[in-house]
Amino acid sequence: MLLATYTVSGRRHVGVVSEDRTTVSPLAVSDAAAALGVRAIVEDAAAGRHLPEAGAPVPLAEVTLDAPIPRPARNIFCVGKNYFDHAHEFAKSGFDMSAASGAVPEAPIIFSKVPESVIGPDRPILIDPDISTAIDYEAELAVIIGTGGRGIPKERALEHIFGYTIVNDVTARDIQGRHKQWLLGKSQDTFCPMGPWVVTADAVSLDDMVVRCWVNDELRQDAPTKALIFDVPTLISTISRGITLQPGDIIATGTPAGVGIGFDPPRYLRDGDRVRIEISGIGNLGNVVARYGRRP
Amino acid sequence: MLLATYTVSGRRHVGVVSEDRTTVSPLAVSDAAAALGVRAIVEDAAAGRHLPEAGAPVPLAEVTLDAPIPRPARNIFCVGKNYFDHAHEFAKSGFDMSAASGAVPEAPIIFSKVPESVIGPDRPILIDPDISTAIDYEAELAVIIGTGGRGIPKERALEHIFGYTIVNDVTARDIQGRHKQWLLGKSQDTFCPMGPWVVTADAVSLDDMVVRCWVNDELRQDAPTKALIFDVPTLISTISRGITLQPGDIIATGTPAGVGIGFDPPRYLRDGDRVRIEISGIGNLGNVVARYGRRP
Repeated sequence: MLLATYTVSGRRHVGVVSEDRTTVSPLAVSDAAAALGVRAIVEDAAAGRHLPEAGAPVPLAEVTLDAPIPRPARNIFCVGKNYFDHAHEFAKSGFDMSAASGAVPEAPIIFSKVPESVIGPDRPILIDPDISTAIDYEAELAVIIGTGGRGIPKERALEHIFGYTIVNDVTARDIQGRHKQWLLGKSQDTFCPMGPWVVTADAVSLDDMVVRCWVNDELRQDAPTKALIFDVPTLISTISRGITLQPGDIIATGTPAGVGIGFDPPRYLRDGDRVRIEISGIGNLGNVVARYGRRP
Repeated sequence: MLLATYTVSGRRHVGVVSEDRTTVSPLAVSDAAAALGVRAIVEDAAAGRHLPEAGAPVPLAEVTLDAPIPRPARNIFCVGKNYFDHAHEFAKSGFDMSAASGAVPEAPIIFSKVPESVIGPDRPILIDPDISTAIDYEAELAVIIGTGGRGIPKERALEHIFGYTIVNDVTARDIQGRHKQWLLGKSQDTFCPMGPWVVTADAVSLDDMVVRCWVNDELRQDAPTKALIFDVPTLISTISRGITLQPGDIIATGTPAGVGIGFDPPRYLRDGDRVRIEISGIGNLGNVVARYGRRP
């Protein structure tokens, strides 16, 4: 099942997208729940409540898709250097000299992005050259936690997944490097495009997903999620070891090789660039890059 | 003014603590607002609403103090190595060899703790030897943002402060080191004691505060907040440069020298330890350390 958060005539809804991905049927939830988007459905499911009734389908072309979870309840958990090729390109770029020993991490590197950095499909990623001149894209599979828990063993981890979506872990490399810890470089306003919807865990297999990213129609990233250094069950087990995971928590699992800093010279995002991420089994997430303070 | 979040007979309130710190007068807010604690008052103030009416005072001894903001709206911003002496003790401990060049940072090191790590005064800090054997205390002044904003200049930063409280930035040093980024080592369940209340910005001066921390009545940390490497206006300006600060955001400003890892051998927290932090002008925050899974 595909669950989308969307707006029609200024009113937000959460709904079920048809299998052919042409229509969406609004679920009968309160306005307060609809404001939370798919997060409300995740919390309902975690509390054992059934999916609300679906209304009459409307064409997807007539709605504006929002980020499926427009405002996560806490910062998004993110994973750094979780594909071998990306870990190597990152090391080779010189960024990493003082930040960590060795190109490939021995344990998952976990940091966060603030919830307010989330934007929906087709919204602009805003760049402000006074703040950063090294803004990079990172295409990633994101896991949405369903049932929370602490001390979740790897072999039970998949049971705790509600579904999947796509995030672009946009990063200001200069800020990321300057402050050593990555929160600021990762959390700038508009730096977490998310969408186009959540695919429930039953509808897709982690073994079949391929992450691809294009900048202006040039393929930059292309890797199967099977290539993750620390796979999804390991990530859930690692984070939940002493931190109680909550329904609706989001884990962005890391990005493959091909980011801008991996090129020599680096190829950072510029005003007017279009970034499109595709994950097979989920869909497409497209965003344009625009100057801060100017409407695209 | 001192604003506290507290519980009486299972019901949460937010109230004004008397100047002699012996009584608290409940503010007339909805149960939903009371559940948010002082955060509801901060959001009210940021929206230009007046402080609600206060009811009859009750003795502080008859209430249970909660964390003033029991559940922040997003992860708490925290600052690493922000006192010279602590930066040096941290470097000397050997922890930092690969993590950052130089003992004293050239720019603020900003990371986060999850909101659910917050606990109130007198609640137990839980340690689980299966997860960490290197749990440390960090006494810190915490700033509560009042009016939000982006691109806040240093010279306007103080206008954006609602008030101050105390946090103990409890840290699992082994987890902090293993995962390079500090989120996991800082966000373990119960790792953010906060309290005892919020002192509004008008009632205290940043120039007069001294942070002290005792473990089992032994003074371990003792420094004026004047000694911060990056002062509070610099922190607010740095974070808000490209990240819109929100009313109720919390910034833990960093810890002075004297943490457990600074001793040789390190003196980490043990079952039964009592940690007490005092900041002049704010008050005292005390917590005991207990084994996870066992009630203290």
